[in-house]
Amino acid sequence: MAHIALTTDEPGIRGLFRFRPETARPLNELVEVLLRGESRLSRGERELIAAYVSALNECKYCYSSHAAYAAAQLPEGMELVEQVRAGLDAAPVSAKLRALLGIAASVQRGGREVSADEVAAARAEGATDVEIHDTVLIAAAFCMFNRYVDGLGTFAPDDPGVYAARAKRIAEDGYLALLRESQEGSEV
Amino acid sequence: MAHIALTTDEPGIRGLFRFRPETARPLNELVEVLLRGESRLSRGERELIAAYVSALNECKYCYSSHAAYAAAQLPEGMELVEQVRAGLDAAPVSAKLRALLGIAASVQRGGREVSADEVAAARAEGATDVEIHDTVLIAAAFCMFNRYVDGLGTFAPDDPGVYAARAKRIAEDGYLALLRESQEGSEV
Repeated sequence: MAHIALTTDEPGIRGLFRFRPETARPLNELVEVLLRGESRLSRGERELIAAYVSALNECKYCYSSHAAYAAAQLPEGMELVEQVRAGLDAAPVSAKLRALLGIAASVQRGGREVSADEVAAARAEGATDVEIHDTVLIAAAFCMFNRYVDGLGTFAPDDPGVYAARAKRIAEDGYLALLRESQEGSEV
Repeated sequence: MAHIALTTDEPGIRGLFRFRPETARPLNELVEVLLRGESRLSRGERELIAAYVSALNECKYCYSSHAAYAAAQLPEGMELVEQVRAGLDAAPVSAKLRALLGIAASVQRGGREVSADEVAAARAEGATDVEIHDTVLIAAAFCMFNRYVDGLGTFAPDDPGVYAARAKRIAEDGYLALLRESQEGSEV
């Protein structure tokens, strides 16, 4: 049971968005820009960073959600998401993405854990400053979302079908469209 | 030196806002609502939560900034901010604020660190569900901001006058006004 009395039985962050629409809007605008806006990183790659950080923070709702969103937008699907979660070193990703995921893991431990050496290594694999910036901010943002969702004790469904259904809609319409629909009360 | 090539020499998060205005906007909208929007918690109390979490994360730029913003808006000024930083148990704050700051400290360690007992204790001291929600989200958001600022290796001035000058303007005009001014290039 959540630590506060929510106004719906929607799981995870969705119940919190409904409880406090004033903060839901900027939070959704942030993920829309970061995970779906213009970028040299694909949407699937950015969702993979979000899922990886959520796994490191052991946030079941956020990991299940963003793993599904990554899987829906990566050619390699859920298998790759689970390989990255199981161990970055052995996962079959490009050298650039491996370096960026490594930076994300450092951010998860703490901002001062990111070293100039690992940033230089990512740059040597072709990462641009914007990609490095966005990786750090995605990782930092999921350190927020994970704490928000678990710090208020929200529940996470076990059924993978719940996340997969939402993944299809996120991939097609994005975060802001789903938020608007939810706030108009038309979403089931 | 920052890990990426910033376009200005503004310190801390300000250089990052200038580098990536697309993410600066929702980030500033979030703090404007959370720290200055309508709430039973005063603006000074909310800035104190932000400063306390930034101290726990050892983020010099964010602590110096939000300590100054809290001091500018609390009757007790900087002395109270430093007493909270030195040790929550002995700090002269209300029982409700002490309980909320304790929840913020749990969130800083990780979302799953927040216990139903400490939430119940805050409620027993008069905290509402919205206050508990906002405390968790402020603490979580500063786990993001702290990682963003330090993860990209930005610099933090030593001179307290830099933060005090900005505190006056934040207290008067708020985050969004300062961001707009900065993006129009009129800020010095």
